[in-house]
Amino acid sequence: MIRINEHYLKLKASYLFSDIAKRVSAYTQANPDKPIIRLGIGDVTEPLPQVCIEALHAGADELANRATFKGYGPEQGYAFLREAIAQHDYAARGCKIDADEIFVSDGSKCDCGNIQEIFATEGLKLAIPDPVYPVYVDTNVMAGRTGANVDGRYAGITYLESTPANGYVPSIPSTASDLIYLCFPNNPTGAVATKEQLAAWVAYARANKAIILFDSAYEAYIRDPQIPHSIYEIEGARECAIEFRSFSKTAGFTGTRCAYTVVPKALQAYDAAGSAHSVHALWNRRHTTKFNGVSYPVQKAAAAIYTEQGKAQVKAMTDAYLVNAALIRDAVAKLGFSCVGGDNAPYIWVNTGRDSWEFFDLLLNKAQVVCTPGAGFGKCGEGHVRISAFNSRANVEKALERIAAALK
Amino acid sequence: MIRINEHYLKLKASYLFSDIAKRVSAYTQANPDKPIIRLGIGDVTEPLPQVCIEALHAGADELANRATFKGYGPEQGYAFLREAIAQHDYAARGCKIDADEIFVSDGSKCDCGNIQEIFATEGLKLAIPDPVYPVYVDTNVMAGRTGANVDGRYAGITYLESTPANGYVPSIPSTASDLIYLCFPNNPTGAVATKEQLAAWVAYARANKAIILFDSAYEAYIRDPQIPHSIYEIEGARECAIEFRSFSKTAGFTGTRCAYTVVPKALQAYDAAGSAHSVHALWNRRHTTKFNGVSYPVQKAAAAIYTEQGKAQVKAMTDAYLVNAALIRDAVAKLGFSCVGGDNAPYIWVNTGRDSWEFFDLLLNKAQVVCTPGAGFGKCGEGHVRISAFNSRANVEKALERIAAALK
Repeated sequence: MIRINEHYLKLKASYLFSDIAKRVSAYTQANPDKPIIRLGIGDVTEPLPQVCIEALHAGADELANRATFKGYGPEQGYAFLREAIAQHDYAARGCKIDADEIFVSDGSKCDCGNIQEIFATEGLKLAIPDPVYPVYVDTNVMAGRTGANVDGRYAGITYLESTPANGYVPSIPSTASDLIYLCFPNNPTGAVATKEQLAAWVAYARANKAIILFDSAYEAYIRDPQIPHSIYEIEGARECAIEFRSFSKTAGFTGTRCAYTVVPKALQAYDAAGSAHSVHALWNRRHTTKFNGVSYPVQKAAAAIYTEQGKAQVKAMTDAYLVNAALIRDAVAKLGFSCVGGDNAPYIWVNTGRDSWEFFDLLLNKAQVVCTPGAGFGKCGEGHVRISAFNSRANVEKALERIAAALK
Repeated sequence: MIRINEHYLKLKASYLFSDIAKRVSAYTQANPDKPIIRLGIGDVTEPLPQVCIEALHAGADELANRATFKGYGPEQGYAFLREAIAQHDYAARGCKIDADEIFVSDGSKCDCGNIQEIFATEGLKLAIPDPVYPVYVDTNVMAGRTGANVDGRYAGITYLESTPANGYVPSIPSTASDLIYLCFPNNPTGAVATKEQLAAWVAYARANKAIILFDSAYEAYIRDPQIPHSIYEIEGARECAIEFRSFSKTAGFTGTRCAYTVVPKALQAYDAAGSAHSVHALWNRRHTTKFNGVSYPVQKAAAAIYTEQGKAQVKAMTDAYLVNAALIRDAVAKLGFSCVGGDNAPYIWVNTGRDSWEFFDLLLNKAQVVCTPGAGFGKCGEGHVRISAFNSRANVEKALERIAAALK
């Protein structure tokens, strides 16, 4: 008899985005004359940079001719892309990351979800932020690293709380951890971590022989020159951290699909007898066994953003979203709310001082604006909403006028 | 202290393709004037169908404009592709498969590797062919469903032997199984299964409440009208089978990346208490949690093969490879070897009657032709080599002349 993986039964269904969709749909059916503006879901809205479009076309043309046709490529990605990443995202910022420490993939969701497979399922001490991107937690539940969900939290996870009290940057736990998830600039809060804060996490990880899984999908939005873009800007991080990056929010690739994961060769993990093993070798085995590389034209498109023209186009696109973010921050402050994010991130995390679904309903019904209720991201999200800067400037301006009128 | 998944340590490293590469490289260095013809690796060589090229360009152009831009799509694939698959690959052959039973992905390697995650790791009885595509075995080893590798075989797997005695179609085991891997047309042998043979497997699976994982990545090469293209052509398969298909070998997508998995809603698996659960719901949870959909232009390109023009272009491409396969079969027979495959598959499995690496070396050194030694696919592969039809006709003809001269 075929048996299921019963850990799936522990998963608490997240109805966040389907609940939002239902409420929005009910509202629009009742009010067909009142158009909605969506600042909820974290999906980009603006076209791909022109260099990427040109590279997609060029890649497609190569596939049309026998002499330039590309079949299976290296599972880890083509050298032209891995080398561009190593040079422009790392060497240029003083980080020593070699091209063969970079694993190109079709998305950070996949990578964040898959990476845990190479670690033990029994007895691993997890530290995961709250509020949080749900994939970190759910994939560990599926693998059997947690107990049951009681009152919204899984047994066996140390929740790293991001609250107004700590400026939404979690404090180092007082107990040991083995696998630590961090995300800066943060989704959903938009908060960033300073070099000193990250250095403290690296020191904690090294002291515990732990590994930090560092999600920096939003690094392209950092404008403050003091804020690190990569965990590898911290001394010693090569010995304790894996970094996830994505082209989704950098260059609008949410529908085009390309990302990468950095696994330094210095990184070690241990067997039960205490012997050290190369994490790079383990991940290479996983990646080559269960993945067959990213679509060739897409890799060409990703590499195009590292040209001078590409960098300028990415800067213009992220700048435009950050202008929206600044407008949102200002409007929120004028309304008397405190908030974080929006200066080095495309998200603004608003401390609403009331139930987050109640605030969501208020904005929907009175301003026809969709945000995301913070409670959907974890217990510490209660009392907050996430407003996304991913929309056109005209839509953002209209949404902010309506919100101001609704909350007057 | 961060601990590794120690099941990875059980993995027996496969040096098959790297060993081949080393021997080829040594030969070409010693004989730079003797050009090699590669009929080894199972990668396509001919350009994408023109309809796919046009669709890639059209998809790229949509990403260039705000009004038609595509961000995150449905993780399971766009309706336009799922509906085309349901209609042309299933309804057209009398199989009742709904569009929402189809999960579009970036490759069958991923799907075959990932599917096992939704099933139990403890106490599951696996049945896996020999010779075999290594991903089926390796992903189960990684998950901890096997014991150690002893003398080339993992404890805890029932190996389904494909031999000259059974015409390379494994017999039904005399003991129970829970999870059964089957692949027809087969990689590496090229053998196909009749309707009666598949019906026996379906009956066995249903009697055992087992699930068949049916890999039909090569179905586009079937020309015999009596041979089923899908396991769902067998009565009762909706209750016991998951099917994997790929555009890689159908339409030359090895570098473009698109595939799909069919999980019928009728399919059930059980918890320890014997309660039934929907496998479709479990897979949907896994797929949406760890995957973010296939690149939009690639989905457009895949859908294009279901147009009348697309079907004709796919037929022309697979026909051309099958002409090569027929030439290889004839040449092999004339040399006095028995073989299987090549009539409804792009692979020819040659019974060489001697050590498979020795035969490989003979073809390399005397004919400058690269094949794949059968021993690399499992114990039952010993004594055989796989010759691939994936090359131009001119190269295949030249290779066959050289082989004939070498073996005279």
